[in-house]
Amino acid sequence: MTQVDHVRMANAIRGLAMDAVEKAKSGHPGLPMGAADIATVLFTQFLKYDAADPTWPDRDRFVLSAGHGSMLLYALLYLTGNKEMTLDQIKRFRQVDSLTPGHPENFRTKGIETTTGPLGQGIATSVGMALAEKMLAAEFGKKIVDHHTYVLCSDGDLMEGVSQEAIAMAGHWRLNKLIVLYDDNGISIDGPTSIADSVDQVKRFKSAGWAAELIDGQDQAAIAAAITRAQKSNKPSLIACKTTIGYGAPTRAGTAKAHGEALGADELKGAKEKLGISLEPFSVPDDVLKAWRTAGSRGAAAHADWDARYGELGPRKRAEFERRLRHERPASLAKALRDHKKKLLENPLNIATRKSSEAAIDAIAETMPMEFVGGSADLTGSNNNKPKNAQAFGAKTPKGRFIHYGIREHGMAAAMNGIFLHGGFAPNGATFLVFTDYARPAMRLAALMGTGVVYVMTHDSIGLGEDGPTHQPVEHLAALRAIPNMRVLRPCDAVEVAECWELALNRTNGPTVLALTRQNLPQLRTSAPSDNPCSHGGYELVAASGEAKVSLFASGSEVEIAVAAQKELAGRGIAARVVSVPSLELLLSQPEDKQKAIIGNAPVKVAIEAAVRWGWDAVIGHDGVFIGMHGFGESGPAKDLYKHFGITAEAAVNAVLKRLG
Amino acid sequence: MTQVDHVRMANAIRGLAMDAVEKAKSGHPGLPMGAADIATVLFTQFLKYDAADPTWPDRDRFVLSAGHGSMLLYALLYLTGNKEMTLDQIKRFRQVDSLTPGHPENFRTKGIETTTGPLGQGIATSVGMALAEKMLAAEFGKKIVDHHTYVLCSDGDLMEGVSQEAIAMAGHWRLNKLIVLYDDNGISIDGPTSIADSVDQVKRFKSAGWAAELIDGQDQAAIAAAITRAQKSNKPSLIACKTTIGYGAPTRAGTAKAHGEALGADELKGAKEKLGISLEPFSVPDDVLKAWRTAGSRGAAAHADWDARYGELGPRKRAEFERRLRHERPASLAKALRDHKKKLLENPLNIATRKSSEAAIDAIAETMPMEFVGGSADLTGSNNNKPKNAQAFGAKTPKGRFIHYGIREHGMAAAMNGIFLHGGFAPNGATFLVFTDYARPAMRLAALMGTGVVYVMTHDSIGLGEDGPTHQPVEHLAALRAIPNMRVLRPCDAVEVAECWELALNRTNGPTVLALTRQNLPQLRTSAPSDNPCSHGGYELVAASGEAKVSLFASGSEVEIAVAAQKELAGRGIAARVVSVPSLELLLSQPEDKQKAIIGNAPVKVAIEAAVRWGWDAVIGHDGVFIGMHGFGESGPAKDLYKHFGITAEAAVNAVLKRLG
Repeated sequence: MTQVDHVRMANAIRGLAMDAVEKAKSGHPGLPMGAADIATVLFTQFLKYDAADPTWPDRDRFVLSAGHGSMLLYALLYLTGNKEMTLDQIKRFRQVDSLTPGHPENFRTKGIETTTGPLGQGIATSVGMALAEKMLAAEFGKKIVDHHTYVLCSDGDLMEGVSQEAIAMAGHWRLNKLIVLYDDNGISIDGPTSIADSVDQVKRFKSAGWAAELIDGQDQAAIAAAITRAQKSNKPSLIACKTTIGYGAPTRAGTAKAHGEALGADELKGAKEKLGISLEPFSVPDDVLKAWRTAGSRGAAAHADWDARYGELGPRKRAEFERRLRHERPASLAKALRDHKKKLLENPLNIATRKSSEAAIDAIAETMPMEFVGGSADLTGSNNNKPKNAQAFGAKTPKGRFIHYGIREHGMAAAMNGIFLHGGFAPNGATFLVFTDYARPAMRLAALMGTGVVYVMTHDSIGLGEDGPTHQPVEHLAALRAIPNMRVLRPCDAVEVAECWELALNRTNGPTVLALTRQNLPQLRTSAPSDNPCSHGGYELVAASGEAKVSLFASGSEVEIAVAAQKELAGRGIAARVVSVPSLELLLSQPEDKQKAIIGNAPVKVAIEAAVRWGWDAVIGHDGVFIGMHGFGESGPAKDLYKHFGITAEAAVNAVLKRLG
Repeated sequence: MTQVDHVRMANAIRGLAMDAVEKAKSGHPGLPMGAADIATVLFTQFLKYDAADPTWPDRDRFVLSAGHGSMLLYALLYLTGNKEMTLDQIKRFRQVDSLTPGHPENFRTKGIETTTGPLGQGIATSVGMALAEKMLAAEFGKKIVDHHTYVLCSDGDLMEGVSQEAIAMAGHWRLNKLIVLYDDNGISIDGPTSIADSVDQVKRFKSAGWAAELIDGQDQAAIAAAITRAQKSNKPSLIACKTTIGYGAPTRAGTAKAHGEALGADELKGAKEKLGISLEPFSVPDDVLKAWRTAGSRGAAAHADWDARYGELGPRKRAEFERRLRHERPASLAKALRDHKKKLLENPLNIATRKSSEAAIDAIAETMPMEFVGGSADLTGSNNNKPKNAQAFGAKTPKGRFIHYGIREHGMAAAMNGIFLHGGFAPNGATFLVFTDYARPAMRLAALMGTGVVYVMTHDSIGLGEDGPTHQPVEHLAALRAIPNMRVLRPCDAVEVAECWELALNRTNGPTVLALTRQNLPQLRTSAPSDNPCSHGGYELVAASGEAKVSLFASGSEVEIAVAAQKELAGRGIAARVVSVPSLELLLSQPEDKQKAIIGNAPVKVAIEAAVRWGWDAVIGHDGVFIGMHGFGESGPAKDLYKHFGITAEAAVNAVLKRLG
């Protein structure tokens, strides 16, 4: 503890936030000014961290769910002594290539745990972090893993639906080391929150199994007392902190005007005078900065103690712990998948790809049983992603490695980000492909942050049959392929499934969607070369006899149709080849000559995919033949639907014959 | 009221549901069997409807949010005497082209209020229906508009986050005529809900300002008493009804096995014996059917009374009411937009398209002030979609026509569907384009159902600047264009904005996204032909002098860049033309010759759009030049970002020069 008044420390945050927003002429001063007291109490008295080593594995996690208040976080990083967060960076707030972008970006700035800004994501991601802490502690022991996850969130975070999914999961799992500080300032962009909201958040959180209370968020003693109570609770805790947005601003405090724009010279001056801060921009008194730096190294002793305990672990356990945190796969994985593929070639599996995925998962989970963390949004038996030996995770079974997320696709995807970011696990989560729509904001963040998570998305087309158009994805492949750094893999058989799982698990800098069928498919592949043909996005599965007049491109369940069409064309003396395209966007990201070689020069190009055409013109041209969906699906048996929508070998052959005259 | 025992009436539902699922060999018997008592009480004692006229405007709305229990609804429609719902249709459950698809489809089957299946959508849509009822009643009086909205929902509906957004809005607006019956059967697909959920739903709803209670959902008297209480409440009501899933099935009742598959011959026989139902498939005893038919015509008298009251309204008011329900626009709209465009040509507006949209909105709202219902997810001042004379809707201001949805994009989009489906209004809702991700499941349903709603999506590219990649859409245009029946319009200036609003409002069979800029743009158009050039998706904005060597395609804010590049190329003696493409998918849906005429034959084709390339290859070819985004954006001033990412006239010119050698 320092001799400097906590109020002056909090005001240092306020001053930097006001000055940075003023200089950038954009940004959000209101939250840092209102929540400065909360942050000061947390960072000087409770948060376990060592500013000198922001990656210390057993640090407490701090998530600024209200990402628009980024200057709060940048001010804290600078004040506590984060090496890279210089005053110069603070001055470059919101400029290209700075470490201080508009919203916090964990992939850009060290000391930031997760990217926030889209509301609700931070609180939902934090549930995954707290979950990971509980799982990892159960495995490596409390001497090595024993930390809290703190969240600072806003009204907006709690209005977003994903927050309900998140708090329901945290309450159910009794994630008592998750502590949410709610900056309850009663103001949103449109005005007082009372124009749009009447929810009693304390009661709401209690209904989800949380400890919850309302305090004065400008009273540092009250904040400290509440955090102390929360740390002792056997439930996750909500501390609703009544604050004043833009605290200190003479005319804007407590109003929406304080939220999201620079204060302007006069208001800024007035605020500084009121708070007793130097008018000199970006100045922090030496004694205050020193007190903050002392706070930033408060955790050094705890860190050293941890290092000592960690040293006692033994080299093998340490190596394992570190490998896990690095997201490096065990050496045994490659062999396991090689053996699995070999078995498939010996005993082909003519089953749905969701089921051949289950077989691959069993092989994988055997080699990494404690780090391969599956889960499903209440479709476990349909998604087929529960390893046969996996136990369900629960409050009393923290060594369980399969998570029943409930019907919460969005919360699941956000939690998966948190699990990955915490470190130690390779999370995959499952639902029907069509419901990626529900999870999309968290999936986008996964792509932006580069979290190596795997989405096991089954029932990937009209092939799911009778559930009808509400459950049949048609635009989802295109919509997912369009997300930068998202990889979509749609394997055509059991061998491609194994190859795609290999690609997915070895991709630790971005998310992967596995699109899998409900319906059975024949095993088409008769070899499994070590270079993994799927890694190029597409490859020639069936060669033409002679110079190809036709190239048939297809993915997933439609490769079978392309192969049948090729055979039929061959019977009519028309040389055609089949190119399997498990990943359209991966094919299109190959070097140009490689792409050309795969796509080929056949005068007639046909793409077959039970989805919309978007994206395929890049392969077959605007004049290419597309056999697929042109609108929504319909309810009926899968075979009837393929006929109904004209996605058949016959249709492909007829289109080719028409094209060839 | 009928003399036939209510239990036998409920069992008729159970029998039909079991038989239909058995015949289809797929479907969900569990919910109809468990909730049959709830439905019987509601449809025989409370619901105001007339089976002979399922479109009677003042009918109570019934929403089966748990759409997988569709056989409950189909059985009710058949039993109550809906003309089209024959026993033959029940027997064709889940077959292609039947009126009885896997999940209820309002665009297919009369008597169904909204399409459900994706969980949470029904309850969230129903909030919009109840909202519309309140707004329309305030306008036309309680003699004409005075009905309830009933919802039957499941555990899954309440686990989905969108349910929180929905109930928070309903509670805040005190939508007391919204009554939600929760089929609280304690079972989800993976097993007992206790494996994934501990939320106390009664407490949760109370925290959101609802009346809420827990009752025995198999006790018809308890159900009736609770509905009676709910009808008297001044708050929306939740009735949690404890039920047994698959009620009556000898071994599967109360288990997950009853949820989503056919019972099988033995279990079905056992259930029928236990319930005392004939083993003959699809048979309903004459007296039971007669009792149901009596229930179905219970509302005829109320309907006749309403007709009489309606007749007293006077012809002008009736014509207005009917026009509104038909979603027909007032004759004055076309003139208002024509005048608005004329003004723009006289006094060009060089402002952001979100602001020229505001100008168009003011012109529109003046001609349809009571039916044009705007709203924003807490970004009103940024989205610029509040008409200058609009008042905020609220519990005490039901004539207000601007809705503060709070930070609830998903709930907003679902409510918009409900407002449209109820009839009487042209809803639009606003947020940043990037947050369409949050609303996507409801937007997809809008496209599937064909609701004529308008999404005012501002801040549509990196041009929003400093908020950074979490707020900058790059893949969203592509992802939205890929949805069948979704129209995406991205106007380049104030005149195109007016034209796009005209297209959007006149599109009453599907949703429209307006993608608008934060940053200022020059007015490029100097004429406004009456055929609305935007209606073709694209058109030549600037002709080449001589035969074009280059075609420059662009949308929205990048048209300005294309025009500058054209000028620069002309200066270098290179003939280029500019094609403005406000709607790529509309261009690609034009007849082939029309498309070819617009796209043209220039050897070099360039597309400029501050978004990813997906889709553009259909216009420019795989070898075309694309000037746009290749990954996520970054935080910085807009002008810096355009330079940083090379989306400039200079870059386009250089690419053309390189291509021309």
